[in-house]
Parts: sequence; C-alpha cells; structure tokens
Amino acid sequence: MAIGTPHDVPGAGRIEFWFDFASTYSYLSVMRIEDDAARLGVRVLWKPFLLGPVFKALGWDNSPFLIQKEKGEYMWKDIARLCAKYDIPWHRPATFPHLAVLPLRVALIGAAMPWVGEFSRRIMLLNFASELDHDINSDAVVGEVLDRMGLPARALIAEACSQPIKQRLKEQTEAARMKGIFGAPSFFVGDEMFWGNDRLDDALAFAAGKGAS
Amino acid sequence: MAIGTPHDVPGAGRIEFWFDFASTYSYLSVMRIEDDAARLGVRVLWKPFLLGPVFKALGWDNSPFLIQKEKGEYMWKDIARLCAKYDIPWHRPATFPHLAVLPLRVALIGAAMPWVGEFSRRIMLLNFASELDHDINSDAVVGEVLDRMGLPARALIAEACSQPIKQRLKEQTEAARMKGIFGAPSFFVGDEMFWGNDRLDDALAFAAGKGAS
Repeated sequence: MAIGTPHDVPGAGRIEFWFDFASTYSYLSVMRIEDDAARLGVRVLWKPFLLGPVFKALGWDNSPFLIQKEKGEYMWKDIARLCAKYDIPWHRPATFPHLAVLPLRVALIGAAMPWVGEFSRRIMLLNFASELDHDINSDAVVGEVLDRMGLPARALIAEACSQPIKQRLKEQTEAARMKGIFGAPSFFVGDEMFWGNDRLDDALAFAAGKGAS
Repeated sequence: MAIGTPHDVPGAGRIEFWFDFASTYSYLSVMRIEDDAARLGVRVLWKPFLLGPVFKALGWDNSPFLIQKEKGEYMWKDIARLCAKYDIPWHRPATFPHLAVLPLRVALIGAAMPWVGEFSRRIMLLNFASELDHDINSDAVVGEVLDRMGLPARALIAEACSQPIKQRLKEQTEAARMKGIFGAPSFFVGDEMFWGNDRLDDALAFAAGKGAS
C-alpha cells in the first residue's frame, strides 16, 4: 500500500463487480476488469447475480433493450464500436439474452478462486464472440469450458445444481436489489456505486485511491 | 483539412449536437463540447429539441430518472462525480426537470450564430450550478441572459414566441424521433449516432477522422 494514498476510504483497494453473463455491457467489463485492476493493485470481488429478477422488480418483464426498440438497436452499434475500441472480439449473438443461470452458479462457487476470471471470460466469449449460437446455460457448454480449464467439470456442475448454491444465487440477486443495483455491470467501492462499463475506469481509480467520489 | 485524415467519411469534420436544457447529461456536454470540438477542428451543429415528446413516444410520461427511482438516485451521484471530474460547477436543482421550451426556441434561433454556445452554457449554469431555483423557461431569466450577452433580448424573445419558431422546434423534435434519438445528449456524425455525454469524446474523434465507427 503506497504511502499517501487514501486507503482509509472504506473499501479502498477492492472493487465489487456485479455482473450477469447475459448482459452485453457486462461482457465488456468481464473482459477488461482483471488486467485493469491488477495494474492498479485493486482486488476484484466477483459478484455474479441474475439481472432478470432485478429488472422484474423495476417493472420490466424483459431486457430494456428488447422493450425499447430504439435503445436496443443503438446498443448493438454501441457495443460493436466499444469492442473495436477496447480490442475485444465481437459477434452479435443470434439469441439475446441467453439465460445464464448455470454459469452464474459456477461463477458463484468460484468467486473467491483464482479461476473465476478466466472462466467468466470464456463463458462471455462463447456468448458474444462466437459465430455459433452456444447455449451457455447448458451442462454441455459449461462442462466443456471447465474441462478445458482442467477443472473438475462434473463435480462443479453437480455443486452448481445443489440447493445451497441455488439459494446463494437467489440471495446474491436479492442483495443486488437491496443495494440499489438496477443494471449490469455495477461496481461498488465501499458504499459508492458505479453503474455501467463506462464507469469501470472511474471505479477502479477510486478503489486505488486515485479518484474522487 | 489535414492530408491523410479520412474526410471522405460523410459528415466528417462536423458533429450534430442534440440536446435539451432540461437534461442533466446534456448539461455536461453543453459545457464541454465547444472547446473540445475546437481543439479537434470539428464544427458543432447545435440541435436543440424537446426531450419530453420523444420520451412520450417511447411510452414514458416523465423523465426516466423520475419514473425509475433507483436510476434517478444514482444519476444525481453520477452527475456530481462527473462535474468534479470535468471541473464543471454543480448544484443539484430544487426542481427537476425544469421545462425549457423558451430557451430552446432561442437556441434554435441562434443555432447558426456564434453566440449559441455561450447562451447555452449560461442557461445550463442557471439550471444546474446555481443555488437559486431559476425558472429557465421564463421571459425574465432568458431575457437577463440575453441582455448580459449584449443581445437584443426583447426582439429575440418575441421571435422565439412567434408561430414559425414554435413550429420549427416541433419539427426539430419530430426529426429527433425520426432519427431514432431516445435520449439526450445525442450526437450524429453523418448517419452514426452516439448517445450520451459518455460518448462525446468518441463522437468528436470520429468527426475528426481519428476514430473508427
């Protein structure tokens, strides 16, 4: 910890990263956050949650990008431009949004493990950078990702489908709602919320004690 | 025009700036755009319009920041942080949103005049940086702004209240809707739309032939 940086700020040096694999703007942040955080010496706390129930609580029965046609059309252009800007691969998925309960449960199991970042990027690349319309919610797809990473796929998927993990994802989703989260990705540094991939840099700078809030 | 910059791109070197004085994120862009555009040699085409009818056409009877409490709460924090970041003065207005039809009509008259930027910044500062709850839609407030700028306040306000100008603001608002605009600020470079103050830098870079779309 460098002398002179305001690490008395609650939560400084750590960033909570709330995301859903179904979310396009979460894709950008999943691909960016680990390297960018490491560069600033910030620790990432991975917080997978289900965006659907949060949207429902806000009165939306689907993604706002589907409910509002104009915004949805624009989003696809915006994401393509941002992927080019950040040098992130991009292919517009045939299905949107893809349900992602299973990989989110696996990410929840791995949230404090060193493999969570790599696992999350691989799931996201299958959702948003592949020409094939992968069902990222299937045992087959999630299992293959885990296999290729040398992780015990069967055991992890079995655990992901267990009652305690199902319950924990529900609780984490409810926690998101209680924190005032209304979209993904969202970042918390202490009590300070930052919404959207566009605020990742500011949130990381704040966590590193380099930005004001 | 510098050799080697792709000025064969339609609209290159010019940016359309669609804004409403009632909009918080338009405030940020009104304060930033003229200097930033000048630095890149980009010409700003000022496009005042009424956000209200655009929201109504999308099915919202008020600002989404009032309809969605969580998003609204967050917006105020976000704007305060961004103002600090950009070194723009900020005071949360007692009334939000303030109707801004009169100053938008004046901005429409001045859209191609050298005074439109300064006029717009002054109106915005009264709306978002003053401790007094100015009615920016009143003849008194708009008149004083014009007076202080050495402009013919009475004549301009009379013209702003004339049928042709009323009609032109309606048409410009309808044009916004037809272009697929769903929020403010929005920027166009040729046919490429960029939404939100967060995209001002990218839109300007694209207009200057320095960014990809």
